Amino acid sequence: MKNIIIASTSTLHGGDYLDYILPELQNHFKNCKTILFIPYARPSGISHEEYTAKVVLAFAKINIAVKGIHEFENPATAIQSAEGIFTGGGNTFLLVSQLYKNEIMDILANVVKNGTPYLGTSAGSNICGLTMQTTNDMPIIYPPSFKTLALIPFNINAHYLDPDSQSTHMGETRETRIKEFHVFNTIPVLGLREGSWLEVKGDKILLKGNLSARLFRQNQAPEEIESGTDISYLK
Amino acid sequence: MKNIIIASTSTLHGGDYLDYILPELQNHFKNCKTILFIPYARPSGISHEEYTAKVVLAFAKINIAVKGIHEFENPATAIQSAEGIFTGGGNTFLLVSQLYKNEIMDILANVVKNGTPYLGTSAGSNICGLTMQTTNDMPIIYPPSFKTLALIPFNINAHYLDPDSQSTHMGETRETRIKEFHVFNTIPVLGLREGSWLEVKGDKILLKGNLSARLFRQNQAPEEIESGTDISYLK
Repeated sequence: MKNIIIASTSTLHGGDYLDYILPELQNHFKNCKTILFIPYARPSGISHEEYTAKVVLAFAKINIAVKGIHEFENPATAIQSAEGIFTGGGNTFLLVSQLYKNEIMDILANVVKNGTPYLGTSAGSNICGLTMQTTNDMPIIYPPSFKTLALIPFNINAHYLDPDSQSTHMGETRETRIKEFHVFNTIPVLGLREGSWLEVKGDKILLKGNLSARLFRQNQAPEEIESGTDISYLK
Repeated sequence: MKNIIIASTSTLHGGDYLDYILPELQNHFKNCKTILFIPYARPSGISHEEYTAKVVLAFAKINIAVKGIHEFENPATAIQSAEGIFTGGGNTFLLVSQLYKNEIMDILANVVKNGTPYLGTSAGSNICGLTMQTTNDMPIIYPPSFKTLALIPFNINAHYLDPDSQSTHMGETRETRIKEFHVFNTIPVLGLREGSWLEVKGDKILLKGNLSARLFRQNQAPEEIESGTDISYLK
Protein backbone atom coordinates (compact mmCIF):
# COMPACT_ATOMS: atom_id res chain seq x y z
CA MET A 1 0.00 0.00 0.00
CA LYS A 2 1.37 3.39 -0.98
CA ASN A 3 2.50 5.53 1.95
CA ILE A 4 3.69 8.89 0.67
CA ILE A 5 4.09 12.50 1.77
CA ILE A 6 4.32 15.00 -1.07
CA ALA A 7 5.29 18.39 0.37
CA SER A 8 5.42 21.72 -1.45
CA THR A 9 8.59 22.82 0.35
CA SER A 10 11.20 21.55 2.78
CA THR A 11 11.38 24.82 4.66
CA LEU A 12 9.01 27.58 5.69
CA HIS A 13 10.19 31.19 5.81
CA GLY A 14 11.97 31.79 9.11
CA GLY A 15 11.97 28.08 10.00
CA ASP A 16 14.66 25.42 9.96
CA TYR A 17 14.97 22.71 7.35
CA LEU A 18 11.95 20.31 7.56
CA ASP A 19 10.99 21.70 11.00
CA TYR A 20 7.34 22.40 10.20
CA ILE A 21 6.71 18.83 9.09
CA LEU A 22 8.91 16.85 11.52
CA PRO A 23 6.00 15.69 13.74
CA GLU A 24 4.34 14.28 10.63
CA LEU A 25 7.59 12.62 9.52
CA GLN A 26 8.09 11.01 12.90
CA ASN A 27 4.89 9.11 12.34
CA HIS A 28 5.43 8.57 8.62
CA PHE A 29 8.82 6.94 9.11
CA LYS A 30 7.99 5.33 12.47
CA ASN A 31 9.14 1.88 11.32
CA CYS A 32 12.43 3.15 9.90
CA LYS A 33 15.75 3.22 11.71
CA THR A 34 17.48 4.57 8.61
CA ILE A 35 16.13 6.23 5.52
CA LEU A 36 17.69 6.58 2.09
CA PHE A 37 18.16 10.15 0.90
CA ILE A 38 18.26 11.04 -2.82
CA PRO A 39 20.23 14.31 -3.08
CA TYR A 40 20.38 14.44 -6.90
CA ALA A 41 18.48 17.74 -7.23
CA ARG A 42 21.39 19.64 -5.57
CA PRO A 43 19.76 23.00 -4.60
CA SER A 44 22.11 25.91 -5.42
CA GLY A 45 24.45 23.26 -6.82
CA ILE A 46 25.59 21.96 -3.41
CA SER A 47 27.26 18.55 -3.44
CA HIS A 48 25.56 15.26 -2.60
CA GLU A 49 27.64 15.12 0.56
CA GLU A 50 26.74 18.63 1.78
CA TYR A 51 23.09 18.09 1.01
CA THR A 52 22.98 14.75 2.80
CA ALA A 53 24.74 16.25 5.84
CA LYS A 54 21.93 18.79 6.12
CA VAL A 55 19.30 16.05 5.98
CA VAL A 56 21.17 13.97 8.57
CA LEU A 57 20.94 16.89 11.02
CA ALA A 58 17.19 17.35 10.49
CA PHE A 59 16.32 13.67 10.88
CA ALA A 60 18.55 13.34 13.95
CA LYS A 61 15.88 15.40 15.75
CA ILE A 62 13.46 12.48 15.34
CA ASN A 63 16.12 9.80 15.87
CA ILE A 64 16.24 8.55 12.31
CA ALA A 65 19.53 7.92 10.56
CA VAL A 66 20.07 8.95 6.93
CA LYS A 67 22.26 7.49 4.19
CA GLY A 68 22.76 9.23 0.85
CA ILE A 69 22.18 7.14 -2.27
CA HIS A 70 25.59 8.27 -3.59
CA GLU A 71 27.22 6.34 -0.71
CA PHE A 72 26.07 3.04 -2.26
CA GLU A 73 27.85 1.11 -4.99
CA ASN A 74 24.54 0.24 -6.62
CA PRO A 75 21.72 2.80 -6.46
CA ALA A 76 19.11 0.25 -7.57
CA THR A 77 19.78 -2.11 -4.67
CA ALA A 78 20.00 0.89 -2.32
CA ILE A 79 16.42 1.73 -3.27
CA GLN A 80 15.21 -1.85 -3.16
CA SER A 81 16.58 -2.40 0.34
CA ALA A 82 15.60 1.01 1.80
CA GLU A 83 13.29 1.15 4.85
CA GLY A 84 12.13 4.60 3.77
CA ILE A 85 13.08 7.10 1.06
CA PHE A 86 13.32 10.89 0.95
CA THR A 87 13.96 12.85 -2.25
CA GLY A 88 14.90 16.45 -1.54
CA GLY A 89 14.31 19.60 -3.57
CA GLY A 90 16.56 21.51 -5.93
CA ASN A 91 16.53 21.36 -9.71
CA THR A 92 13.94 18.97 -11.16
CA PHE A 93 15.69 18.67 -14.56
CA LEU A 94 18.84 17.53 -12.81
CA LEU A 95 16.98 15.15 -10.50
CA VAL A 96 15.09 13.52 -13.37
CA SER A 97 18.25 13.28 -15.49
CA GLN A 98 20.08 11.52 -12.67
CA LEU A 99 17.22 9.10 -11.98
CA TYR A 100 17.24 8.09 -15.66
CA LYS A 101 21.02 8.00 -15.92
CA ASN A 102 21.21 5.64 -12.95
CA GLU A 103 18.28 3.64 -14.35
CA ILE A 104 16.26 3.90 -11.16
CA MET A 105 13.15 5.82 -12.21
CA ASP A 106 11.06 2.65 -12.58
CA ILE A 107 12.67 0.93 -9.60
CA LEU A 108 11.88 3.89 -7.36
CA ALA A 109 8.30 4.01 -8.62
CA ASN A 110 7.87 0.28 -7.96
CA VAL A 111 9.15 0.21 -4.39
CA VAL A 112 7.02 3.21 -3.44
CA LYS A 113 3.95 1.68 -5.08
CA ASN A 114 4.68 -1.46 -3.06
CA GLY A 115 4.73 0.38 0.24
CA THR A 116 8.18 1.77 1.05
CA PRO A 117 7.38 5.05 2.88
CA TYR A 118 8.37 8.00 0.70
CA LEU A 119 8.79 11.70 1.35
CA GLY A 120 9.24 14.27 -1.40
CA THR A 121 9.78 17.98 -1.01
CA SER A 122 9.72 20.44 -3.89
CA ALA A 123 11.57 18.74 -6.82
CA GLY A 124 11.17 15.45 -4.91
CA SER A 125 7.43 16.11 -4.99
CA ASN A 126 7.27 17.19 -8.63
CA ILE A 127 8.50 13.74 -9.64
CA CYS A 128 5.56 12.08 -7.87
CA GLY A 129 3.26 13.29 -10.64
CA LEU A 130 2.86 11.92 -14.16
CA THR A 131 5.39 14.31 -15.66
CA MET A 132 7.82 17.00 -14.53
CA GLN A 133 6.22 19.46 -16.94
CA THR A 134 4.84 21.73 -14.24
CA THR A 135 8.12 22.36 -12.47
CA ASN A 136 9.26 25.95 -11.92
CA ASP A 137 12.91 25.05 -12.41
CA MET A 138 15.37 26.09 -15.07
CA PRO A 139 16.27 23.50 -17.75
CA ILE A 140 19.94 23.38 -16.78
CA ILE A 141 20.33 19.85 -18.16
CA TYR A 142 18.47 17.93 -20.90
CA PRO A 143 16.72 14.87 -19.45
CA PRO A 144 15.93 11.87 -21.69
CA SER A 145 12.23 12.25 -20.88
CA PHE A 146 9.87 14.44 -18.86
CA LYS A 147 7.97 11.37 -17.55
CA THR A 148 8.25 10.82 -13.82
CA LEU A 149 7.14 8.38 -11.10
CA ALA A 150 3.36 8.54 -11.61
CA LEU A 151 2.66 7.81 -7.95
CA ILE A 152 -0.40 10.04 -8.24
CA PRO A 153 -2.61 10.45 -11.33
CA PHE A 154 -1.96 14.20 -11.75
CA ASN A 155 0.88 16.73 -11.67
CA ILE A 156 2.21 18.90 -8.85
CA ASN A 157 3.25 22.53 -8.99
CA ALA A 158 5.39 22.92 -5.88
CA HIS A 159 5.95 26.31 -4.20
CA TYR A 160 2.69 27.45 -5.78
CA LEU A 161 2.66 31.24 -5.81
CA ASP A 162 -0.42 33.44 -6.17
CA PRO A 163 -0.22 36.33 -8.64
CA ASP A 164 1.06 39.51 -6.95
CA SER A 165 -1.37 42.29 -7.77
CA GLN A 166 1.25 44.89 -6.78
CA SER A 167 3.90 43.56 -9.13
CA THR A 168 5.04 45.58 -12.15
CA HIS A 169 6.98 42.61 -13.52
CA MET A 170 5.69 41.40 -16.87
CA GLY A 171 6.94 37.80 -16.69
CA GLU A 172 4.18 35.18 -16.73
CA THR A 173 2.39 34.38 -13.46
CA ARG A 174 2.33 30.79 -12.28
CA GLU A 175 -1.32 30.59 -13.28
CA THR A 176 -0.51 31.72 -16.84
CA ARG A 177 2.26 29.13 -17.10
CA ILE A 178 -0.08 26.34 -16.02
CA LYS A 179 -2.69 27.63 -18.49
CA GLU A 180 -0.07 27.29 -21.24
CA PHE A 181 0.57 23.70 -20.05
CA HIS A 182 -3.13 22.94 -20.43
CA VAL A 183 -3.21 24.06 -24.04
CA PHE A 184 -1.29 20.86 -24.83
CA ASN A 185 -1.92 18.56 -21.87
CA THR A 186 -4.99 17.18 -20.14
CA ILE A 187 -3.26 16.24 -16.86
CA PRO A 188 -4.72 18.08 -13.83
CA VAL A 189 -2.23 20.23 -11.91
CA LEU A 190 -2.37 20.82 -8.17
CA GLY A 191 -0.65 24.03 -7.06
CA LEU A 192 0.65 23.24 -3.55
CA ARG A 193 1.39 26.36 -1.51
CA GLU A 194 4.37 26.31 0.86
CA GLY A 195 3.23 24.58 4.05
CA SER A 196 0.82 22.23 2.29
CA TRP A 197 1.39 18.57 1.58
CA LEU A 198 -0.44 15.53 0.25
CA GLU A 199 -0.73 12.39 2.33
CA VAL A 200 -1.15 9.33 0.13
CA LYS A 201 -2.23 6.10 1.81
CA GLY A 202 -3.03 3.43 -0.74
CA ASP A 203 -5.41 5.08 -3.18
CA LYS A 204 -6.50 7.79 -0.74
CA ILE A 205 -5.01 11.24 -1.27
CA LEU A 206 -5.59 13.91 1.40
CA LEU A 207 -4.57 17.58 1.32
CA LYS A 208 -2.91 18.53 4.62
CA GLY A 209 -1.35 21.60 6.25
CA ASN A 210 -3.00 24.94 7.01
CA LEU A 211 -3.53 26.23 3.49
CA SER A 212 -5.83 25.55 0.60
CA ALA A 213 -4.36 24.32 -2.69
CA ARG A 214 -5.22 25.52 -6.19
CA LEU A 215 -6.43 22.99 -8.70
CA PHE A 216 -6.07 23.57 -12.44
CA ARG A 217 -7.87 21.45 -14.98
CA GLN A 218 -7.94 21.78 -18.73
CA ASN A 219 -10.76 24.04 -19.95
CA GLN A 220 -11.99 24.71 -16.40
CA ALA A 221 -11.70 27.65 -14.04
CA PRO A 222 -9.11 27.09 -11.28
CA GLU A 223 -10.57 25.83 -8.02
CA GLU A 224 -9.52 26.20 -4.38
CA ILE A 225 -9.28 22.90 -2.47
CA GLU A 226 -9.56 23.16 1.31
CA SER A 227 -7.10 21.44 3.61
CA GLY A 228 -8.46 18.07 4.73
CA THR A 229 -10.14 17.39 1.41
CA ASP A 230 -9.92 13.88 -0.01
CA ILE A 231 -8.81 14.38 -3.62
CA SER A 232 -8.64 10.70 -4.56
CA TYR A 233 -11.25 11.42 -7.26
CA LEU A 234 -8.77 13.55 -9.20
CA LYS A 235 -7.32 12.25 -12.45
CA MET B 1 26.26 41.60 -41.24
CA LYS B 2 24.11 40.68 -38.28
CA ASN B 3 21.47 43.28 -37.39
CA ILE B 4 19.56 42.15 -34.32
CA ILE B 5 17.58 43.53 -31.39
CA ILE B 6 17.28 41.17 -28.43
CA ALA B 7 14.76 42.62 -25.97
CA SER B 8 13.97 41.39 -22.47
CA THR B 9 10.25 42.04 -22.85
CA SER B 10 7.70 43.16 -25.42
CA THR B 11 5.81 45.29 -22.94
CA LEU B 12 6.58 47.49 -19.97
CA HIS B 13 4.18 47.69 -17.03
CA GLY B 14 1.42 50.17 -17.85
CA GLY B 15 2.52 50.44 -21.49
CA ASP B 16 1.13 49.07 -24.73
CA TYR B 17 2.61 46.16 -26.64
CA LEU B 18 6.08 47.12 -28.02
CA ASP B 19 5.43 50.83 -27.36
CA TYR B 20 8.63 51.53 -25.42
CA ILE B 21 10.80 50.22 -28.23
CA LEU B 22 8.88 51.37 -31.33
CA PRO B 23 11.23 54.31 -32.12
CA GLU B 24 14.12 51.85 -32.12
CA LEU B 25 12.17 49.40 -34.32
CA GLN B 26 11.32 52.11 -36.82
CA ASN B 27 15.02 52.49 -37.48
CA HIS B 28 15.82 48.79 -37.17
CA PHE B 29 13.27 47.77 -39.81
CA LYS B 30 13.61 50.95 -41.93
CA ASN B 31 14.19 48.98 -45.12
CA CYS B 32 11.24 46.65 -44.56
CA LYS B 33 7.75 47.13 -45.93
CA THR B 34 6.62 43.84 -44.40
CA ILE B 35 8.12 41.71 -41.67
CA LEU B 36 7.61 38.05 -40.92
CA PHE B 37 6.24 37.28 -37.46
CA ILE B 38 6.90 33.95 -35.72
CA PRO B 39 4.05 33.45 -33.22
CA TYR B 40 5.00 29.91 -32.16
CA ALA B 41 5.57 30.77 -28.47
CA ARG B 42 1.82 31.50 -28.01
CA PRO B 43 1.74 33.44 -24.69
CA SER B 44 -1.16 32.26 -22.49
CA GLY B 45 -1.84 29.74 -25.26
CA ILE B 46 -3.39 32.29 -27.68
CA SER B 47 -3.59 31.17 -31.30
CA HIS B 48 -1.13 32.08 -34.05
CA GLU B 49 -3.86 34.23 -35.61
CA GLU B 50 -4.68 36.16 -32.41
CA TYR B 51 -1.04 36.73 -31.64
CA THR B 52 -0.26 37.94 -35.15
CA ALA B 53 -3.25 40.31 -35.07
CA LYS B 54 -1.76 41.96 -31.97
CA VAL B 55 1.59 42.40 -33.69
CA VAL B 56 -0.05 43.81 -36.83
CA LEU B 57 -1.62 46.55 -34.69
CA ALA B 58 1.67 47.47 -33.04
CA PHE B 59 3.68 47.64 -36.26
CA ALA B 60 0.92 49.62 -38.02
CA LYS B 61 2.02 52.54 -35.80
CA ILE B 62 5.33 52.62 -37.67
CA ASN B 63 3.80 51.76 -41.05
CA ILE B 64 5.19 48.26 -41.33
CA ALA B 65 3.02 45.35 -42.43
CA VAL B 66 3.22 41.96 -40.68
CA LYS B 67 2.62 38.43 -41.98
CA GLY B 68 2.52 35.43 -39.66
CA ILE B 69 4.70 32.47 -40.60
CA HIS B 70 1.68 30.18 -40.22
CA GLU B 71 0.10 31.96 -43.23
CA PHE B 72 2.75 30.49 -45.53
CA GLU B 73 2.67 27.06 -47.11
CA ASN B 74 6.40 26.63 -46.52
CA PRO B 75 7.92 28.17 -43.38
CA ALA B 76 11.49 27.74 -44.68
CA THR B 77 10.89 29.82 -47.80
CA ALA B 78 8.93 32.34 -45.72
CA ILE B 79 12.06 32.88 -43.63
CA GLN B 80 14.40 32.91 -46.61
CA SER B 81 12.37 35.55 -48.41
CA ALA B 82 11.56 37.74 -45.38
CA GLU B 83 12.66 41.40 -45.35
CA GLY B 84 12.76 41.32 -41.55
CA ILE B 85 11.80 38.84 -38.83
CA PHE B 86 10.23 39.19 -35.37
CA THR B 87 9.88 36.29 -32.93
CA GLY B 88 7.52 37.11 -30.07
CA GLY B 89 7.48 35.91 -26.48
CA GLY B 90 5.49 33.18 -24.76
CA ASN B 91 6.70 29.70 -23.94
CA THR B 92 10.28 28.97 -25.00
CA PHE B 93 9.83 25.16 -24.91
CA LEU B 94 6.94 25.46 -27.35
CA LEU B 95 8.79 27.93 -29.58
CA VAL B 96 11.89 25.74 -29.78
CA SER B 97 9.81 22.59 -30.38
CA GLN B 98 8.01 24.27 -33.28
CA LEU B 99 11.21 25.60 -34.84
CA TYR B 100 12.63 22.08 -34.82
CA LYS B 101 9.39 20.45 -35.96
CA ASN B 102 9.24 22.78 -38.94
CA GLU B 103 12.96 22.27 -39.58
CA ILE B 104 13.72 25.97 -39.58
CA MET B 105 16.08 26.42 -36.60
CA ASP B 106 19.18 26.37 -38.80
CA ILE B 107 17.53 28.29 -41.63
CA LEU B 108 16.49 31.06 -39.25
CA ALA B 109 19.99 31.21 -37.77
CA ASN B 110 21.52 31.45 -41.23
CA VAL B 111 19.36 34.26 -42.60
CA VAL B 112 19.89 36.34 -39.47
CA LYS B 113 23.64 35.73 -39.54
CA ASN B 114 23.54 36.87 -43.17
CA GLY B 115 21.86 40.16 -42.35
CA THR B 116 18.07 39.85 -42.28
CA PRO B 117 17.05 42.29 -39.51
CA TYR B 118 15.74 40.34 -36.53
CA LEU B 119 13.83 41.32 -33.41
CA GLY B 120 13.31 38.98 -30.47
CA THR B 121 11.34 39.68 -27.32
CA SER B 122 11.35 37.38 -24.28
CA ALA B 123 11.21 33.78 -25.64
CA GLY B 124 12.17 35.22 -29.04
CA SER B 125 15.28 36.61 -27.32
CA ASN B 126 16.09 33.47 -25.34
CA ILE B 127 16.54 31.59 -28.61
CA CYS B 128 19.24 34.05 -29.74
CA GLY B 129 21.64 32.49 -27.22
CA LEU B 130 23.53 29.22 -27.45
CA THR B 131 20.85 27.25 -25.62
CA MET B 132 17.38 27.79 -24.14
CA GLN B 133 18.61 26.52 -20.79
CA THR B 134 18.22 29.83 -19.00
CA THR B 135 14.57 30.34 -19.84
CA ASN B 136 12.09 30.95 -17.01
CA ASP B 137 9.34 29.04 -18.78
CA MET B 138 7.56 25.85 -17.87
CA PRO B 139 8.49 22.69 -19.81
CA ILE B 140 5.00 22.24 -21.26
CA ILE B 141 6.34 20.32 -24.26
CA TYR B 142 9.49 18.20 -24.78
CA PRO B 143 11.74 19.72 -27.45
CA PRO B 144 14.18 17.53 -29.41
CA SER B 145 17.08 19.67 -28.18
CA PHE B 146 17.79 22.71 -25.98
CA LYS B 147 20.19 24.17 -28.59
CA THR B 148 19.06 27.42 -30.14
CA LEU B 149 20.13 29.99 -32.77
CA ALA B 150 23.57 30.89 -31.38
CA LEU B 151 23.38 34.42 -32.80
CA ILE B 152 25.37 35.59 -29.77
CA PRO B 153 28.06 33.60 -27.93
CA PHE B 154 26.26 33.50 -24.56
CA ASN B 155 22.78 32.92 -23.10
CA ILE B 156 19.99 35.33 -22.23
CA ASN B 157 17.81 35.34 -19.15
CA ALA B 158 14.86 37.47 -20.22
CA HIS B 159 12.64 39.31 -17.70
CA TYR B 160 15.56 39.20 -15.28
CA LEU B 161 14.24 39.73 -11.77
CA ASP B 162 16.25 40.82 -8.75
CA PRO B 163 15.75 38.90 -5.52
CA ASP B 164 12.95 40.43 -3.42
CA SER B 165 14.34 40.96 0.09
CA GLN B 166 10.78 41.28 1.46
CA SER B 167 9.62 37.97 0.06
CA THR B 168 8.77 35.07 2.37
CA HIS B 169 8.54 32.68 -0.59
CA MET B 170 11.10 29.87 -0.45
CA GLY B 171 11.24 29.06 -4.18
CA GLU B 172 14.64 29.68 -5.80
CA THR B 173 15.55 33.22 -6.84
CA ARG B 174 16.56 33.82 -10.43
CA GLU B 175 20.16 34.20 -9.27
CA THR B 176 20.08 30.80 -7.57
CA ARG B 177 18.64 29.18 -10.70
CA ILE B 178 21.42 30.63 -12.86
CA LYS B 179 23.97 29.50 -10.28
CA GLU B 180 22.57 25.96 -10.65
CA PHE B 181 22.97 26.30 -14.44
CA HIS B 182 26.64 27.19 -13.95
CA VAL B 183 27.36 24.04 -11.96
CA PHE B 184 27.04 22.18 -15.27
CA ASN B 185 27.56 24.80 -17.96
CA THR B 186 30.31 27.31 -18.79
CA ILE B 187 28.14 29.56 -21.01
CA PRO B 188 27.88 33.15 -19.66
CA VAL B 189 24.32 34.32 -18.90
CA LEU B 190 23.15 37.89 -19.29
CA GLY B 191 20.15 38.75 -17.12
CA LEU B 192 18.25 41.39 -19.12
CA ARG B 193 15.87 43.45 -17.01
CA GLU B 194 12.57 44.55 -18.54
CA GLY B 195 13.26 47.65 -20.62
CA SER B 196 16.77 46.57 -21.63
CA TRP B 197 17.82 45.20 -24.98
CA LEU B 198 20.92 44.20 -26.88
CA GLU B 199 21.72 45.78 -30.21
CA VAL B 200 23.83 43.46 -32.34
CA LYS B 201 25.48 44.95 -35.45
CA GLY B 202 27.90 42.52 -37.00
CA ASP B 203 30.12 41.37 -34.16
CA LYS B 204 29.40 44.39 -31.97
CA ILE B 205 26.96 43.85 -29.09
CA LEU B 206 25.72 46.90 -27.15
CA LEU B 207 23.52 46.97 -24.06
CA LYS B 208 20.73 49.53 -24.51
CA GLY B 209 17.76 50.90 -22.58
CA ASN B 210 17.79 52.69 -19.22
CA LEU B 211 18.81 49.82 -16.97
CA SER B 212 21.93 47.89 -16.17
CA ALA B 213 22.05 44.16 -16.89
CA ARG B 214 23.38 41.43 -14.63
CA LEU B 215 26.12 39.19 -15.95
CA PHE B 216 26.67 35.71 -14.56
CA ARG B 217 29.80 33.70 -15.32
CA GLN B 218 30.81 30.32 -14.04
CA ASN B 219 32.83 30.56 -10.83
CA GLN B 220 32.66 34.36 -10.76
CA ALA B 221 30.64 36.84 -8.75
CA PRO B 222 27.74 38.37 -10.72
CA GLU B 223 28.54 41.72 -12.30
CA GLU B 224 26.41 44.74 -13.21
CA ILE B 225 26.85 45.94 -16.80
CA GLU B 226 25.89 49.57 -17.45
CA SER B 227 23.68 50.55 -20.35
CA GLY B 228 25.78 51.61 -23.34
CA THR B 229 28.48 49.04 -22.62
CA ASP B 230 29.98 47.17 -25.55
CA ILE B 231 29.87 43.51 -24.49
CA SER B 232 31.33 42.06 -27.67
CA TYR B 233 34.15 40.62 -25.56
CA LEU B 234 31.77 38.24 -23.83
CA LYS B 235 31.90 34.54 -24.61
